[in-house]
Amino acid sequence: MPEIYDAQTFYEGLVKHGLIVPVGVPGAFGRGAVFEDVLERFNAMVSRLSAADGAEHFTFPPVISRRILERVHYMDSFPHLCGAIYSFFGKEAQARELAARINGGEPWGELLGITDVVLNPAACYPVYPSFTGTVPSAGRLVTMMNWVYRHEPSPEPTRMQSFRVREFVRVGTADQVVQWRDMWLQRGLDLLSGLGLDARADVASDPFFGRSGKMLATTQKEQRLKFEVLIPVISADNPTAVCSFNFHQEHFGSTFDIHTSDGAIANTACLGFGLERIVMALFRTHGFEPGRWPQEVRSQLWP
Amino acid sequence: MPEIYDAQTFYEGLVKHGLIVPVGVPGAFGRGAVFEDVLERFNAMVSRLSAADGAEHFTFPPVISRRILERVHYMDSFPHLCGAIYSFFGKEAQARELAARINGGEPWGELLGITDVVLNPAACYPVYPSFTGTVPSAGRLVTMMNWVYRHEPSPEPTRMQSFRVREFVRVGTADQVVQWRDMWLQRGLDLLSGLGLDARADVASDPFFGRSGKMLATTQKEQRLKFEVLIPVISADNPTAVCSFNFHQEHFGSTFDIHTSDGAIANTACLGFGLERIVMALFRTHGFEPGRWPQEVRSQLWP
Repeated sequence: MPEIYDAQTFYEGLVKHGLIVPVGVPGAFGRGAVFEDVLERFNAMVSRLSAADGAEHFTFPPVISRRILERVHYMDSFPHLCGAIYSFFGKEAQARELAARINGGEPWGELLGITDVVLNPAACYPVYPSFTGTVPSAGRLVTMMNWVYRHEPSPEPTRMQSFRVREFVRVGTADQVVQWRDMWLQRGLDLLSGLGLDARADVASDPFFGRSGKMLATTQKEQRLKFEVLIPVISADNPTAVCSFNFHQEHFGSTFDIHTSDGAIANTACLGFGLERIVMALFRTHGFEPGRWPQEVRSQLWP
Repeated sequence: MPEIYDAQTFYEGLVKHGLIVPVGVPGAFGRGAVFEDVLERFNAMVSRLSAADGAEHFTFPPVISRRILERVHYMDSFPHLCGAIYSFFGKEAQARELAARINGGEPWGELLGITDVVLNPAACYPVYPSFTGTVPSAGRLVTMMNWVYRHEPSPEPTRMQSFRVREFVRVGTADQVVQWRDMWLQRGLDLLSGLGLDARADVASDPFFGRSGKMLATTQKEQRLKFEVLIPVISADNPTAVCSFNFHQEHFGSTFDIHTSDGAIANTACLGFGLERIVMALFRTHGFEPGRWPQEVRSQLWP
């Protein structure tokens, strides 16, 4: 692998080696068998590493209730990233009009209406409503692997519209969840470094929309609410965020009426491994052929 | 399990046993750890059964190019089932208007615009554009497990908006693909019957929209282009389709310029296992606790 980082060259290498399959729109490519194998094996490493924690395991579909986005005020901060789902609610005549427009190459977006579901923009969102009520004194710990959507089409391979996140969510007192997040930050760094990846942690902020968003991002950084683990994949100067660790304080607890056993509003934190990005970091670091990766890396993924 | 079939009672049983988690919208529930374990183990059985066939393996995200839906004329036939993805393309002032509408409880669907991606309505769709060109004389065979979306919200648990399909696609001459489909129809029946499920095959049709759709469905049945495997899950009289076997003739070959080695337009066929529905059929047939399933069923899923 050359020492020069370049998004286009890396993308072409992934395609040439059958690791990803172009589909005509950016950020929604297919994944080949070898790519999937590495992804599943890394995910299994995370499961083994955290097995003793006793997290409850869930899988949620790529779509969630639109009401969740509305209640957590997602559209106040990230309207440009959302993916809301629209469908056709008309009768025969409108259906003929719709087909005629599409087959004539004309715009047809205004003929559909909004549904009650949206694409899930953050792996942890669907689980919070299920916590409503009082959690046990030890809190709650859940893990999920969900497909996540962000509307940011880009030819840059790590900037995907649709990708999987292996997520953990902790509910409890502020002390419980911050201690847990800090433990995982070190654990995540050790896991990735142990796979020969040049991983480092940094304070981070979310990509809030607009001018007021810049202030929100500054406050978020000052309060050290978000950390990321970064690895160079397509740039040495701007390494790619492959994990994110977020302390939400009482945001979800107050929105979804989640309480700790002493009656206070629960705090929550979450962390997510961006699985496709980690797989790409492995290919970028060790080469496009897993059979030729260093033995100490292979022995962990293929135990 | 009582002999009376009832959708509501079955749904409540799935929830009570932690197999699924309600999320506030119909057909998009979360899946618990036991549900997922059975799903993955059934999927692994399909992989073992077909290992010698040598299919290429892909995974596609839940979203595909909108251009695919347009080219295959999906919206002519199934506009009511589509899920098109809309996002926000405005600037600061429009974002403030959007947030104000949402936080005021007003409709906001008209403030978003259509994107270049749609939810994938059929597990096989994203792979056809990658076949463009001439296939080898033995044809092509691929397999995928993709999330599929249908806009048909329903409290009936087997009628989901979002679910997974284990799919196989065959490309070649008409003889090649029909022979392959017929082989799999018997193989699928044997697989499901071997798990103690009351499975039978029948000629079927797609849920085409409107009056002209009724004629299309009749023609499709007369030509025997679609078969399904059916198992009673929520009704004895109207068993649930858990697999579908489709002969597309030259539909995708002509749309995506796929040719056989003799220069003719390629024929295609596909088949899909509706994974959640098969898992539900197992729970309905053998009870909500896999630990108490018959040994001959357990020994196949937990080999």
